[in-house]
Amino acid sequence: MRLADLTQRAGEWLRGVGPMHDVVISSRIRLARNLAGVPFLSRCGTDQQREIEQRLREKILQAGIAREMFYVDVGAAGELDRQLLVERHLISRQHADADHPRGVAITADETAAIMVNEEDHLRMQILRSGLQLAEAMREIQHMDDLLEKHLDFAYHGQFGYLTACPTNVGTGMRVSVMLHLPALKMTGEIEKVFRAARDMRLAVRGLYGEGTEATGDFFQVSNQSTLGKTEEQIVEEFLSQMIPEFIEYERRARRALLDRQHRAIDDKVGRAHALLRAVKLISSEETMYLLSLLRMGVNLERITSVDLRAINELFLLTQPAHLQKMYKREMTAEQRAEARADLIRARLGGD
Amino acid sequence: MRLADLTQRAGEWLRGVGPMHDVVISSRIRLARNLAGVPFLSRCGTDQQREIEQRLREKILQAGIAREMFYVDVGAAGELDRQLLVERHLISRQHADADHPRGVAITADETAAIMVNEEDHLRMQILRSGLQLAEAMREIQHMDDLLEKHLDFAYHGQFGYLTACPTNVGTGMRVSVMLHLPALKMTGEIEKVFRAARDMRLAVRGLYGEGTEATGDFFQVSNQSTLGKTEEQIVEEFLSQMIPEFIEYERRARRALLDRQHRAIDDKVGRAHALLRAVKLISSEETMYLLSLLRMGVNLERITSVDLRAINELFLLTQPAHLQKMYKREMTAEQRAEARADLIRARLGGD
Repeated sequence: MRLADLTQRAGEWLRGVGPMHDVVISSRIRLARNLAGVPFLSRCGTDQQREIEQRLREKILQAGIAREMFYVDVGAAGELDRQLLVERHLISRQHADADHPRGVAITADETAAIMVNEEDHLRMQILRSGLQLAEAMREIQHMDDLLEKHLDFAYHGQFGYLTACPTNVGTGMRVSVMLHLPALKMTGEIEKVFRAARDMRLAVRGLYGEGTEATGDFFQVSNQSTLGKTEEQIVEEFLSQMIPEFIEYERRARRALLDRQHRAIDDKVGRAHALLRAVKLISSEETMYLLSLLRMGVNLERITSVDLRAINELFLLTQPAHLQKMYKREMTAEQRAEARADLIRARLGGD
Repeated sequence: MRLADLTQRAGEWLRGVGPMHDVVISSRIRLARNLAGVPFLSRCGTDQQREIEQRLREKILQAGIAREMFYVDVGAAGELDRQLLVERHLISRQHADADHPRGVAITADETAAIMVNEEDHLRMQILRSGLQLAEAMREIQHMDDLLEKHLDFAYHGQFGYLTACPTNVGTGMRVSVMLHLPALKMTGEIEKVFRAARDMRLAVRGLYGEGTEATGDFFQVSNQSTLGKTEEQIVEEFLSQMIPEFIEYERRARRALLDRQHRAIDDKVGRAHALLRAVKLISSEETMYLLSLLRMGVNLERITSVDLRAINELFLLTQPAHLQKMYKREMTAEQRAEARADLIRARLGGD
């Protein structure tokens, strides 16, 4: 398993076949952990950071987390490779851009990834398609248990796990769910959802672009604080109250649009489909926007000739680093716009 | 011949087969004339206006101008019929909206039209497709001669023909040419054309929308004053200097775009074509914009499956009054957006 193999396929989480996939793109759980008796990363010199990185790398690969797991020395990786990992949601933008010794361990199916020396010594995540928080929870706890057999984590009897940033102290857990809410955006009800989320002390942000101006109609909902609740309580709240409510809002908005404005829906969706099959040049941003509409069209069964998986793969493969990896050369923005258009037309059976 | 028949077909000038039709949509010459010994229209009461209208109507229909000529009492016509005449460039917006006795005589092929009681007692025009100013000139002079056999026009030995507005005094002639300049607009050179036109004392305005913000990339170039030159001199200047220069500018810009940015052209043109075949709702304004791009694509032979005539007809038939006439009922803007989309898809072989 090498990094280059990643561009040939989409990770499990993007297959788009998980539960509630008409609205829920993916579920993610992340745990922050730090080594006991070792300073937080920002307090270490480069030598100590390197030492931590090498030790953690070794322990992670010994822990038996998955049948196949590979490790990327992010500090030594080229810019394109780092960008590729960001685009696949395997490392954070900060982790890609930092300049100290650091890395990431990834399972072959990409559901699990462990960043070494990000803000904390360890940041592990499980990422799954659709609404699979319970499964993700089981897996990340299992991964945490396996690592604790080899490593001693900083833990405080009263506060819980200690983390570099106070907002992560406690469980050190962040739960996030990526939602596709095109109908709520179209009807303008998305603001209501944002207010409801804030009332539940959830953070909402657009996957591409910020806040309500997000392109692509994708929104990530996550918990704000990790202190004072158990891991199980946090996940339970997501599963029993918050997410079902958002799903129901969006489904209701889609039905209402179809009932009252099916022409407008067919127009928007049909235009997106036609454009994607005709473009000769297209930006990342417009791609996200059009694919998002097409995805809604397929989920609403207004378009039956396109496979959901093809759309989900295009979301991933049309990103800058993926394109350049696929074409095996560095490209300017304009060259990418060409290559992206060619790829989309080819996948969607365009001219 | 009745007004209703007009909606079944496009006038000669829109067939798009005239000389230089890749750049020149149509040529128009208009003459303003007033009756000698009768006050200008603004100085007449309603009774006198009605008397003038009836007299002119009778004389025009007796003059033997064309084998078939019909007259529309614009004051008695419904709003939709008046709007239809405006959309076909047979009467002015002012003539449609006025509320005194008035009318228009039209030949069956719509190349000739004579407005009665517009700003002047008579406003006659010849409208032909492509660059046909010399032909239009011959025809309008012939029409003028025929009318002068039956009518005595106000003429001043020194100034020439007298008109209600001083800018028309002299020949009373206005020459205008409708140009399609999408490449110059795309390269930003259109401003240079506007400056050159002003230097030649020509007026330039967008056919749809105003000035450089015109949608559809159509621009009408016309002479500003009619005093101090003969009719022949005005037309000769258009034919020998001004228009050939504009045509050459536009053709050069198209070649340059194709040489250096053929991807960008194919992208724009292909998107327009794909959208037009996919829309389920579309406004007049967007229709003009997309048809304009498609027209350029056909003229540049980047699109070979569409007939220029189909495009030219759609420009006409997708306008509000034409749509309502065709569907034989009044429609709201949204109903028109539906009907317009259906018509376009049907004509361009869409889904």
